[in-house]
Amino acid sequence: MDSLFWPGAERAGDLMTPAALVRAMVEVERAWLEALVAAGVAPADAGGQLGAFEIEDARGLVAKVASGSEAGGNPVIPLVRLLRQQFSGQPAAKWLHRGLTSQDVLDSALLGCLGRVLAQVRAELDGQIAAVARLADRHRATPMAGRTLTQHAVPTTFGMKAAQWLTALLDARDGLDRLPPLPVQFGGAAGNLSAVVELARLAGSPDPAATAVTILRTAAQTLDLQFRTPWHTARAPITAVGDALVGCCDAWGRIARDVIELGRPEIGELAEPVAEGRGGSSTMSQKRNPVLSVLIRRTALSAPQLAATLHLAAAEAVDERPDGSWHAEWPALQSLSRGAVVAAAQAGELLAGLEVSPSRMAENLQAAGEGIQAEQRSMAQLFPSPNQPETYLGLTDFVVDDVLNRARETRERR
Amino acid sequence: MDSLFWPGAERAGDLMTPAALVRAMVEVERAWLEALVAAGVAPADAGGQLGAFEIEDARGLVAKVASGSEAGGNPVIPLVRLLRQQFSGQPAAKWLHRGLTSQDVLDSALLGCLGRVLAQVRAELDGQIAAVARLADRHRATPMAGRTLTQHAVPTTFGMKAAQWLTALLDARDGLDRLPPLPVQFGGAAGNLSAVVELARLAGSPDPAATAVTILRTAAQTLDLQFRTPWHTARAPITAVGDALVGCCDAWGRIARDVIELGRPEIGELAEPVAEGRGGSSTMSQKRNPVLSVLIRRTALSAPQLAATLHLAAAEAVDERPDGSWHAEWPALQSLSRGAVVAAAQAGELLAGLEVSPSRMAENLQAAGEGIQAEQRSMAQLFPSPNQPETYLGLTDFVVDDVLNRARETRERR
Amino acid sequence: MDSLFWPGAERAGDLMTPAALVRAMVEVERAWLEALVAAGVAPADAGGQLGAFEIEDARGLVAKVASGSEAGGNPVIPLVRLLRQQFSGQPAAKWLHRGLTSQDVLDSALLGCLGRVLAQVRAELDGQIAAVARLADRHRATPMAGRTLTQHAVPTTFGMKAAQWLTALLDARDGLDRLPPLPVQFGGAAGNLSAVVELARLAGSPDPAATAVTILRTAAQTLDLQFRTPWHTARAPITAVGDALVGCCDAWGRIARDVIELGRPEIGELAEPVAEGRGGSSTMSQKRNPVLSVLIRRTALSAPQLAATLHLAAAEAVDERPDGSWHAEWPALQSLSRGAVVAAAQAGELLAGLEVSPSRMAENLQAAGEGIQAEQRSMAQLFPSPNQPETYLGLTDFVVDDVLNRARETRERR
Amino acid sequence: MDSLFWPGAERAGDLMTPAALVRAMVEVERAWLEALVAAGVAPADAGGQLGAFEIEDARGLVAKVASGSEAGGNPVIPLVRLLRQQFSGQPAAKWLHRGLTSQDVLDSALLGCLGRVLAQVRAELDGQIAAVARLADRHRATPMAGRTLTQHAVPTTFGMKAAQWLTALLDARDGLDRLPPLPVQFGGAAGNLSAVVELARLAGSPDPAATAVTILRTAAQTLDLQFRTPWHTARAPITAVGDALVGCCDAWGRIARDVIELGRPEIGELAEPVAEGRGGSSTMSQKRNPVLSVLIRRTALSAPQLAATLHLAAAEAVDERPDGSWHAEWPALQSLSRGAVVAAAQAGELLAGLEVSPSRMAENLQAAGEGIQAEQRSMAQLFPSPNQPETYLGLTDFVVDDVLNRARETRERR
Repeated sequence: MDSLFWPGAERAGDLMTPAALVRAMVEVERAWLEALVAAGVAPADAGGQLGAFEIEDARGLVAKVASGSEAGGNPVIPLVRLLRQQFSGQPAAKWLHRGLTSQDVLDSALLGCLGRVLAQVRAELDGQIAAVARLADRHRATPMAGRTLTQHAVPTTFGMKAAQWLTALLDARDGLDRLPPLPVQFGGAAGNLSAVVELARLAGSPDPAATAVTILRTAAQTLDLQFRTPWHTARAPITAVGDALVGCCDAWGRIARDVIELGRPEIGELAEPVAEGRGGSSTMSQKRNPVLSVLIRRTALSAPQLAATLHLAAAEAVDERPDGSWHAEWPALQSLSRGAVVAAAQAGELLAGLEVSPSRMAENLQAAGEGIQAEQRSMAQLFPSPNQPETYLGLTDFVVDDVLNRARETRERR
Repeated sequence: MDSLFWPGAERAGDLMTPAALVRAMVEVERAWLEALVAAGVAPADAGGQLGAFEIEDARGLVAKVASGSEAGGNPVIPLVRLLRQQFSGQPAAKWLHRGLTSQDVLDSALLGCLGRVLAQVRAELDGQIAAVARLADRHRATPMAGRTLTQHAVPTTFGMKAAQWLTALLDARDGLDRLPPLPVQFGGAAGNLSAVVELARLAGSPDPAATAVTILRTAAQTLDLQFRTPWHTARAPITAVGDALVGCCDAWGRIARDVIELGRPEIGELAEPVAEGRGGSSTMSQKRNPVLSVLIRRTALSAPQLAATLHLAAAEAVDERPDGSWHAEWPALQSLSRGAVVAAAQAGELLAGLEVSPSRMAENLQAAGEGIQAEQRSMAQLFPSPNQPETYLGLTDFVVDDVLNRARETRERR
Repeated sequence: MDSLFWPGAERAGDLMTPAALVRAMVEVERAWLEALVAAGVAPADAGGQLGAFEIEDARGLVAKVASGSEAGGNPVIPLVRLLRQQFSGQPAAKWLHRGLTSQDVLDSALLGCLGRVLAQVRAELDGQIAAVARLADRHRATPMAGRTLTQHAVPTTFGMKAAQWLTALLDARDGLDRLPPLPVQFGGAAGNLSAVVELARLAGSPDPAATAVTILRTAAQTLDLQFRTPWHTARAPITAVGDALVGCCDAWGRIARDVIELGRPEIGELAEPVAEGRGGSSTMSQKRNPVLSVLIRRTALSAPQLAATLHLAAAEAVDERPDGSWHAEWPALQSLSRGAVVAAAQAGELLAGLEVSPSRMAENLQAAGEGIQAEQRSMAQLFPSPNQPETYLGLTDFVVDDVLNRARETRERR
Repeated sequence: MDSLFWPGAERAGDLMTPAALVRAMVEVERAWLEALVAAGVAPADAGGQLGAFEIEDARGLVAKVASGSEAGGNPVIPLVRLLRQQFSGQPAAKWLHRGLTSQDVLDSALLGCLGRVLAQVRAELDGQIAAVARLADRHRATPMAGRTLTQHAVPTTFGMKAAQWLTALLDARDGLDRLPPLPVQFGGAAGNLSAVVELARLAGSPDPAATAVTILRTAAQTLDLQFRTPWHTARAPITAVGDALVGCCDAWGRIARDVIELGRPEIGELAEPVAEGRGGSSTMSQKRNPVLSVLIRRTALSAPQLAATLHLAAAEAVDERPDGSWHAEWPALQSLSRGAVVAAAQAGELLAGLEVSPSRMAENLQAAGEGIQAEQRSMAQLFPSPNQPETYLGLTDFVVDDVLNRARETRERR
């Protein structure tokens, strides 16, 4: 995903790039090798080497790993070969990757990368929640026309609308919070970890199984991933992350669509923050396009289908490790997670500087005329001698307060 | 979704059928009207009528509601009209639906229906978890060839494989458990509940907002749905259910694919339970097709795209109530939820009676020859004077126990 | 797909209903049996019976076929059994379905049903093309603001916009026209037609293969489907229909979105045709919702994911007949094709009665102010002494004429 | 799409890369500018400069264009700015891009790139068709077990299976051939080409519309794209390409699934071509994974959802140019088209060197036993005194010949 085909992609920085993935794979190999050493399964002099390696050589490594990925079907095989060449003659070359399978390294590395993606999305969401909470509070009494199926319905306030946006953002945040801890993947060739137990046995461990479990736990802790028994073909840890990220994109897309529609010149109630050079046209000098919202909407229209691919991959897993569906996860995860980070940043910028026009809201509400009071009148007709009509904003304050409370609780829970 | 285009659909019974939806909509209208009465907003004689109505006339109502749905774009409008005709001249006709909007009734009714869907899926999953836990325990020492990317890898056991299936089922169960409580939808025309507050005011309530909140809470309680401020355009309650159901279909699909592949006659390690007349062919008398697995896989291939439609609908929500994306949710929800219930029942039957052939597993493992021991040999080569090779099943027992423990905890948590 | 979950579904009438599918399956069985008789492979008294049967018993048959579909995984198996019971003791019972496999009957029946769907969609499109051609011609000089990324860009005309709609409709029509003829499916158990050749041989045919080919051609002709060698696992005939139908939904969705946006009260340039009771609200008497467009958009948001399921099914076909992906096609085809027919009818009604407001268009253009002339001014600045500005409508007439010509050619090609 | 997340991506070379897109955009700008000059609208000294520019500076340009893409929402705006800076003070700077809008440049450039993609896919398909035609012919009498729903059905031949593969490939090829010519996009700011007509008028053209049409035709011809009136919001040219590419992926996926299943060691009838280092495992030295098929299947599982995104984008187009859906097309098109090219090359290599084992086929057929003759026996029972059974391969020869004829006609049509 590059900025030419996905404008704004640079906002995702190094998250889920080839270089980040290679670095994460080296981290997995290192954590495992050090755990083998710590458990006395690999000799002491096999440890301590991969750290230095990574710093010096990561960049050249990425291209070599990439070009070698097809032969074995995944990037772990060339990475291990290249690392062994690098340490040729040293114990690390011999002991590297022992007990692991490609999928262990790639799954664990991807989850490491996804952990960083989720942290960034969470941070962005928190900023957005604060910004929209301010909007909801400030505009709780800013009247505007409520619109349903695009037509004027009854009066409402912009604070009420912001409370609805906030609900969407809080739901997205809750979706991330409900995610189970990201697990490590350590299963060995066919998921029963036979190789590492064998290594422990051959190394003289009195209880090879216990030694192997210790190695797993140690490496998981180093990688800051949850210890879990293997899930080579039980892919919920992947689909859950995908679903949660799509949930975020849904919330941003929903907000963007309001900004897009209410920013139409005939409506003019909302506008994107002005930034030097943003929203211009290649031929019309007066144009100020809602570029952030448009790019957010692009992501929201694309993300659900990528998550669907992750689910299909999960459903098609077979045997002890799958025959193609695992491979379908990687590009979908990359596009989805980088896309979500970009949209998160764009939504954050949009919401932090959103321009709200109470005067246009008032004008449009005024122009809506009598029709927009029709429901209120019809309520009065239910009573023989109704009171004089007052404002018709219902539970707006209650709803705004309720959602602001929820935002406060979410913030305090962190 | 009917049984001709979706064989097995009858297993979903009345869940999410037109009749069930109409009944649920009447329940919502009734709960709301009774709450209006209880709060003193509607007169006492407006209550107590819809219950009898439903029992007598639900069937004729469904067809009329259906044929009247297009004019207003949803089935609530004709339902309200028909109910008012039915109670013509009585207070219920006048007070019915006051304070609500179509989306309140339909969303709340759909969530009521989805609650029943989820309960059934949960029950089925619990049965499956118990069945697969038995398989994992019984076959923890049943050797078979581990296969990765379809090729023989290292030896494993069928118990180990069952533990992987169990992991998938437990993840699916956890996905359901992580769902937030299903909320009621009560927002009124544009989500700020102006009409119900106005009714309370006109009825002389000293604190109309508080009265309105009481009405909301009362009706939510009657419907056994969580009280929540409106979410007309914040659709996470819908997408979350969709994602959780797809997660279940993923788990069943993953298991079905193993049954399909390992049931190939050349492999013959698993077979579907025999049932009179099942799996036959229209022309080949010897055929015993893995029909349950095939139909489960059908669902697993279909479900992710339906959930993607729900997410697109969420992302496209706009204004105070959306311009088409809300309407796209209904058929996707119906197909997805009925499909999931059918697959749940099929998977339950499949797993309860699955035929496992330890002898074919042993034969295939034997036939795999030396290759399948290659990894074990290569481990030995790392050591100058390795011990004699033993079994190479690694942490199988640990993994099986770990997953069985998780199954036990899941059961106890209920 | 029923009208409660899919308002407007009744517009699809009997197309792709369970009853229609059963009828089509009986037609396939009959055409095949008559062809066996005509070729002298089955005895003469085996013919001439299914026609009468269908007329008398189709209704009761549907429910029985539906409830029997799961056991064999498809509705053909119970249908054949029921037909044989019905003709018990008669030659038809013995000779029915001989040489066929379930997939032959179901695929051929589905394509028969799809042929009727396509015919109706084509007819609707032709009416829409005529209606929009009139709009384009009538309004070729009706000025309005051109809008890009929702903002005022340069002046245009409504005729120019209608020409763009017409382009979308003509492309959709071309997509249907480019479809290859719908083929019959006759392959027998594993696609090599061994049973029918065997029957011809046993019946004494001197050239059993030639006799079998004659039977195939005869039956195909009866069914008005193209003769084709088997395509049990080469599913392009299915995916092509799906793609073409989605292409139609795209065109209608694109038009609906303009009607939705330009019908916002603040813009007010377009409105849906008025119909008694349409577009009303359950609580707001003034509402006139753009219901047709909203329901069209619902379909357009749903259809692409259904077509994706058809492609996944095609990609997953395996062996001589597939292990679940075939079964995934049926509900997707049903929802997609019925949905398309409904949207076709709704779009036809929308376009036939669309209300265009040249005065609101002129007002909005006027209100757009100087900005909308910015491009024109910047063109003048390229020249040292530019002429006076004139209208700035560019090739509008040329484009409208070009598209009208294309519409005329499309009409004449039929 | 890079080789780390999409192993094999390097097979797509420069197709649809950022550099290729920038180059294509410069080609569009150049073709247009030269056409302006040729028509006498721009001065002669504005021409002849962009060609040299591209050769010297394309590489540095790509990064600058990429990083500037977000501000205006697309890469054309920074490209034009950079080109104008480059030619500062020269006539080209002043005249560049006059009369165009961003979408003109990007759509035309993308179609130029897609043209090269389609050419490569066509060439690969032709090679595959030839290879599979040879397989079908050579193995028309190689007996094997026919399998349906994974179970033994009736005998067939590998030539018959290859004929089914060939059908899928020919259908995919026909899908490409049915594509309408790729059109150029020239519409100007809002699709009515007002700016170029204005330029012609200001430049003194006696018939500015005719001059503008000439410019369009000239530039279209230079770019080797079909002249077409604007289609800014009528996106069938994009969705049609997407559907055709998915159709190809379906065919390759279908073949790959047979190779994957029949290459299971217990079946062993097919194997991928051996290549040094391919199909190895990171831990099991004996492994020979079907890597090509696995990677093809990955693409086939991913492609349909990308095409669905293209359709959603088409359905959501609005106004004179869309508000986000256009932007969603680019990454989907890139992933889909590069993915298709990679899969094409992998399928070509797979089919050119596929290993077929007639002996394993014969063994499995033999092992299938009497059951696989059940249908043949049941046919005999229809006759009082049947002939002796012969081979039961039905119309295999006829079908193979028919499909080979179709392949020949396809070849000759080129």
